[in-house]
Amino acid sequence: MSKKVPYKIYLTEEQMPKQWYNMLADMKVKPAPYLNPATLEPLGVTDLYPIFCEELAKQELNTQDRYIDIPEGILNFYKIYRPSPLIRAYNLEKALGTPAKIYFKFEGSNTSGSHKLNSAAAQVYYAKEQGLKCLTTETGAGQWGTALAMACAHFGLDLKVYMVKISSQQKPYRKTVMETFGAEVIPSPSETTKVGREILKNDPNTHGSLGCAISEAIEASMSRDDCRYVLGSVMNQVILHQSIIGLEAKKAMELVDEYPDIVIGCAGGGSNLGGLIGAFMQDRFAGRKAPYFIAVEPASCPSFTRGKFAYDFCDTGRVTPLAKMYTLGSDFKPSPNHAGGLRYHGMSPMLSQLYYDGYIDEARAVEQSAVFEAACLFAKHETILPAPESSHAVRVAIDEALKCKETGEAKKILFGLTGTGTFDMTAYSSYISGEMVDYNPTDEELEASFSRLPKVE
Amino acid sequence: MSKKVPYKIYLTEEQMPKQWYNMLADMKVKPAPYLNPATLEPLGVTDLYPIFCEELAKQELNTQDRYIDIPEGILNFYKIYRPSPLIRAYNLEKALGTPAKIYFKFEGSNTSGSHKLNSAAAQVYYAKEQGLKCLTTETGAGQWGTALAMACAHFGLDLKVYMVKISSQQKPYRKTVMETFGAEVIPSPSETTKVGREILKNDPNTHGSLGCAISEAIEASMSRDDCRYVLGSVMNQVILHQSIIGLEAKKAMELVDEYPDIVIGCAGGGSNLGGLIGAFMQDRFAGRKAPYFIAVEPASCPSFTRGKFAYDFCDTGRVTPLAKMYTLGSDFKPSPNHAGGLRYHGMSPMLSQLYYDGYIDEARAVEQSAVFEAACLFAKHETILPAPESSHAVRVAIDEALKCKETGEAKKILFGLTGTGTFDMTAYSSYISGEMVDYNPTDEELEASFSRLPKVE
Repeated sequence: MSKKVPYKIYLTEEQMPKQWYNMLADMKVKPAPYLNPATLEPLGVTDLYPIFCEELAKQELNTQDRYIDIPEGILNFYKIYRPSPLIRAYNLEKALGTPAKIYFKFEGSNTSGSHKLNSAAAQVYYAKEQGLKCLTTETGAGQWGTALAMACAHFGLDLKVYMVKISSQQKPYRKTVMETFGAEVIPSPSETTKVGREILKNDPNTHGSLGCAISEAIEASMSRDDCRYVLGSVMNQVILHQSIIGLEAKKAMELVDEYPDIVIGCAGGGSNLGGLIGAFMQDRFAGRKAPYFIAVEPASCPSFTRGKFAYDFCDTGRVTPLAKMYTLGSDFKPSPNHAGGLRYHGMSPMLSQLYYDGYIDEARAVEQSAVFEAACLFAKHETILPAPESSHAVRVAIDEALKCKETGEAKKILFGLTGTGTFDMTAYSSYISGEMVDYNPTDEELEASFSRLPKVE
Repeated sequence: MSKKVPYKIYLTEEQMPKQWYNMLADMKVKPAPYLNPATLEPLGVTDLYPIFCEELAKQELNTQDRYIDIPEGILNFYKIYRPSPLIRAYNLEKALGTPAKIYFKFEGSNTSGSHKLNSAAAQVYYAKEQGLKCLTTETGAGQWGTALAMACAHFGLDLKVYMVKISSQQKPYRKTVMETFGAEVIPSPSETTKVGREILKNDPNTHGSLGCAISEAIEASMSRDDCRYVLGSVMNQVILHQSIIGLEAKKAMELVDEYPDIVIGCAGGGSNLGGLIGAFMQDRFAGRKAPYFIAVEPASCPSFTRGKFAYDFCDTGRVTPLAKMYTLGSDFKPSPNHAGGLRYHGMSPMLSQLYYDGYIDEARAVEQSAVFEAACLFAKHETILPAPESSHAVRVAIDEALKCKETGEAKKILFGLTGTGTFDMTAYSSYISGEMVDYNPTDEELEASFSRLPKVE
């Protein structure tokens, strides 16, 4: 018999996970290796040292260790803002009139407003341990930059954030938040790098782009030996750190004698989805009962559902190693109407392999007006204003709960609520005023993009 | 011996308070009665029915019942976003090098970003129980309006928010948040009321004011029998509902065998301060060991430290009953340089009486650049970006902890962190860029304001 389930379940400090779970160790087919884009040779751990600090490079390619101890410095940082609550959406269930039991793991109640802090903490910690003094990164919407600024403030590292110029103008508050935590925020393109100066020379009025900000951040990190470039999604190491989401969620459900029938995560680069499903995927790897896994992506940037499983660059600037993943092509950009985040052209190589091999059961693309409809409904009944990214998972959770209403099944649905929408009110405003437009890329558009994929045997 | 104290202490659902604590019942000297401004006659419960719904009017004047049951509908709403955590500021302690133990009760992790939701929930619930269909209110910065919109969405009441026009232009996102929760937000002055039309006729380009927004909200509520005007601070009923802050904080400290030596709360209208200190003040009323209570207010709006204890209007528009309280005069406005919230001219009559009678030990006025300095230090070490209002308490908590460093005392300091600063980045930006200016009203300015106080024997 099930215990009475409270609205919110918090683990105690003692119950918080002391180890991350590394899906790579249990995958029968490992992700294809990263390739040097010039030679097409696979990259080993030491090849990654100029890019990542050593511990992170090892984690990136670690296919041996199922569990990796979380160092005490990171555990102590996690204790400041974690555990995040597992919440039973009683009010949403009631509003939908569904027999389904809806649970969500809420990662948005820290100041960065999202789950990104879980990996930022780890990446900054290892950089500090290695004696590095400075990190660089790029940010678009600003969640990753904020998370990294918070972690750098805690561990005492300098941080330069190259922020897409148009974003820094449209979201000056995000810039100020990062500055409050001590980060230097540089609108990109800038005069601080060669690549920035070059772009400004050709187009002084450019709005900037994520690709350009990445290139500037990488160049800035290369100019100092004690500096590294860090990034917040896609990589195996990030999904490793994010595994704490699923580990906590699974443990919290165990405390009330529950286990999900369906697990739903939104997917951009894959950091949240990978982190949420890990602990449950372990059950499937081991041949035990496991949930049905659904990845949700925007119809306007549908890498899982309409992309190719192929080698591609991880960035639009084509300076990174090649990774084999579901991709729309590294220069694919979602329509300017696209407001819902999750605008990455590719998908985590690890999750791509899992989807290709059938371990992730389903990928579903949803249109943004349906996403914001779900977001508003959720906000009214659960009092949390969800981030547009998270709202993709909200949409599918509601759809699955409504199916249960049809069939009368009391399925247990777990989804990841990755963050809050406080800094995304422009998108909400566009939805509320009826100005929001949906967009699906045409087949021709995608074919043209696929034709520019790098040629790899 | 003290137990090992975790970073965060959450009560379980079973441990959450089921009753509010009513300080009025234990006060030896009760606050002076509200007066009808025309007749100067004391107002009884039924005189308040046209203004407040009946249950709230009763609570406003209830000096009998020490505990008031929290109805199940409100308890269930509290369970969605409460309990709020009691947090041990280990990292701040370490950064300060103090032997003091710093605790804070964090009320900002709901979408409204502040403690205001505790009373909004109660006020909307009772309105619904009475069969009302609609509420009106005014909002400046938007925290109260957002909290009320969230509660109205939950309980299914219509809400009209009159938002000071300049605020609705400067904070369009706050407006959108309220709209997302289904509220109608009307920039004030507006054409929807007689008083609004009058003001616009005389000054079509006015920026609006809180006084005008209050007058419009009251007029709009008067136009319908099933509608009431509600407000989020100052009143006894609000402090009653907010008592949950102190009750939870006290219980959480008991769980780790702790009791505060000092309790620090920021004070604007008094809703947070009153809510935080209540459960501890009960110990003082009963002659038991109690903490030293410090109220913190901005030097630019110093009602406790430089105001008069006298009858005054509760609003700048002079339409409300008269209340006896510490006041700077109902038309006092802090300098436009003032960025730190807490800009109310008066102070809760209940708290004013407690301060006058020596139950609140100290009121301290702090300047805003010192407040923001403390806020930035706190954010860096505790990862939470505090609201400017809350940061007043942060400032004094840090000052007290630094005194402990001098003396070597390991005092236990508890302060209220009422909210987050996510929507206040303009103020942070002004501090970071060095443009923030401190301001203290001159004696002449205050004397002129006092001379306009209503004449009451």
